[in-house]
Amino acid sequence: MAFDYVARRARLAELLPAREVHALLVTSPVNVRYLTGLASSNAAVLVRADGTALLATDNRYIEAARALDVPSVEAYDVAEKLTENLAGPGVGIEAAWMSVATYRRLDGGLDSGLDRGLVPLEPVVELLRAVKDDSELELLHTACQITDQAFADVSVKIAPGITERDLARLLDNRMTELGADKPAFDTIVAAGENGAIPHHAPTGRELRAGDLVTMDFGARYQGYHADMTRTVCLGAPAGWQREIYDLVAEAQRAGRHALAPGAGARDVDAAARTVIEGAGHGDHFRHGLGHGVGLEIHEEPFLGPSRTGRLEDRVPITVEPGVYLPGRGGVRIEDTLVTREGGPELFTKTTKELLVL
Amino acid sequence: MAFDYVARRARLAELLPAREVHALLVTSPVNVRYLTGLASSNAAVLVRADGTALLATDNRYIEAARALDVPSVEAYDVAEKLTENLAGPGVGIEAAWMSVATYRRLDGGLDSGLDRGLVPLEPVVELLRAVKDDSELELLHTACQITDQAFADVSVKIAPGITERDLARLLDNRMTELGADKPAFDTIVAAGENGAIPHHAPTGRELRAGDLVTMDFGARYQGYHADMTRTVCLGAPAGWQREIYDLVAEAQRAGRHALAPGAGARDVDAAARTVIEGAGHGDHFRHGLGHGVGLEIHEEPFLGPSRTGRLEDRVPITVEPGVYLPGRGGVRIEDTLVTREGGPELFTKTTKELLVL
Repeated sequence: MAFDYVARRARLAELLPAREVHALLVTSPVNVRYLTGLASSNAAVLVRADGTALLATDNRYIEAARALDVPSVEAYDVAEKLTENLAGPGVGIEAAWMSVATYRRLDGGLDSGLDRGLVPLEPVVELLRAVKDDSELELLHTACQITDQAFADVSVKIAPGITERDLARLLDNRMTELGADKPAFDTIVAAGENGAIPHHAPTGRELRAGDLVTMDFGARYQGYHADMTRTVCLGAPAGWQREIYDLVAEAQRAGRHALAPGAGARDVDAAARTVIEGAGHGDHFRHGLGHGVGLEIHEEPFLGPSRTGRLEDRVPITVEPGVYLPGRGGVRIEDTLVTREGGPELFTKTTKELLVL
Repeated sequence: MAFDYVARRARLAELLPAREVHALLVTSPVNVRYLTGLASSNAAVLVRADGTALLATDNRYIEAARALDVPSVEAYDVAEKLTENLAGPGVGIEAAWMSVATYRRLDGGLDSGLDRGLVPLEPVVELLRAVKDDSELELLHTACQITDQAFADVSVKIAPGITERDLARLLDNRMTELGADKPAFDTIVAAGENGAIPHHAPTGRELRAGDLVTMDFGARYQGYHADMTRTVCLGAPAGWQREIYDLVAEAQRAGRHALAPGAGARDVDAAARTVIEGAGHGDHFRHGLGHGVGLEIHEEPFLGPSRTGRLEDRVPITVEPGVYLPGRGGVRIEDTLVTREGGPELFTKTTKELLVL
């Protein structure tokens, strides 16, 4: 997959003058990958306002770095290397990513005695990353296809007696067999009362007749993360199970329909949340409605009651309301979609009808 | 597995007065888990010099938190919650973990206008974590057993025609089938010339007769990480392959034998490195000799030429020298061991004879 890293760095460079810096020291590994193509656990790139850049990484990754379209230098202390010869003040740093320890080491802002004029900045690269190009959408689409297919293949094995942990493993293995790099995050399988815990880690609890079973999982494909949740019922649903399932499905539909370029992040959240609140379950849905996906499983933009900002076009994002009844169980339904003029594009296509298995 | 979290917090509390703080705000997720048992992506714990503590996490994890032996409060902004009512100065923060953005938000050290007297500290909890108790060693031992068994089960399938990526998947799947939570890190399989890249990510390259094939992998079991590397040869080794294999094996043996409570971290590194340098391959071994393992795959202590400090008793650590010949291939041999009085205990037991497959 060919990405235009030069164009990405040029777009970043255009954003720097308004932030009153002449360069940005990028130390988030994901942001370094986005801007250069280098996937590593130790690299940094200095992007200047004229669009030029310098990449630093250690000997484990320097061979890969030298094959890229950006000059590179070898160092273990990559941030130190890229700031040691700064001519003057006005280099931004990623304040959300750089640790206090590193900042103290590099700069005088915390009484270190140095002062290289590093300027802590709010996220910048993350704003660029939110809007995906065609190559990125293609990879994300494949990640979602693998996720759908894995669910289809594994769903025939969802039955009383299998454990949460076994079911999670079946999903994970099937995704990798289908070509995923690996699962996009730690797969959640929550049966019965465990379904009331939004981020339940799978246990040895066996699935039983009468359980609602929530599966939250996704494939990572060439670095891009899919995210999908489905809740199924083992046997005919009880009244309360059907009630909260239908409610969450309705809220999820409302959230999806509110997705549009220009829509406010809090307004999309509200579209789904008011449905749940209207049914008296507001206290049982206490997380945000969704989040961007891409090179990270959780990235900008985020949908929630206190989120500001507006969606742009071509933004992959999840819509995932839930209702969680402590001690009893829960339902969550989640898709990955992409904002588009004319209506969102659904990437995860597994049915949202209540599956009775 | 029962851990004594109260005792862990008490040991931490004893270390605080010497650092001139009356409490430590712990925000590293792994350190929070170590001190409380809560595994989450958003939690913090304030541990006071009198041994008492307060845990904060959000609604996704609050139910799990309430089941623990430490008081807890619910909040999304966990660091803010635990510092909002501080009585006075002298609360330490984990400078290696807290971001500049969070620090600016909480404290006046970066001109935020607030000043809660937060004191950036060097790692403290990490020092405690380096020395493992019996329960931890038992889990790590199981993680290493799974790793050994997976290698034994998969090794019969290492043959010309299989791709690096397929081989990595076989190892990963076998580890999870054997009970691993998941792979301890992204499995490395590097065939032929790719073996010259220490952190090569598996590709579609097929294994061929004449290849050296390096596999660096491990199981995570109940949170504890195993780490092992073996290099095998497809067909009879060429002279240069046998030469660097024997050299790395000799260096690895020297490194293992140097492991002892009281040994200097740089001296253990040197014991192995001088063997490789003596053979004229010093430039072909440019990473550190090893690292601690536990709740993280890379944790204190680290073995390397510039590492200070001395090993203690009961410290699980890797020994992993390598020789990497650009364009040709490489060899790395790695074990997980535990420092003990009387000699290190070998946890990964797969043979280090050169396997010719």
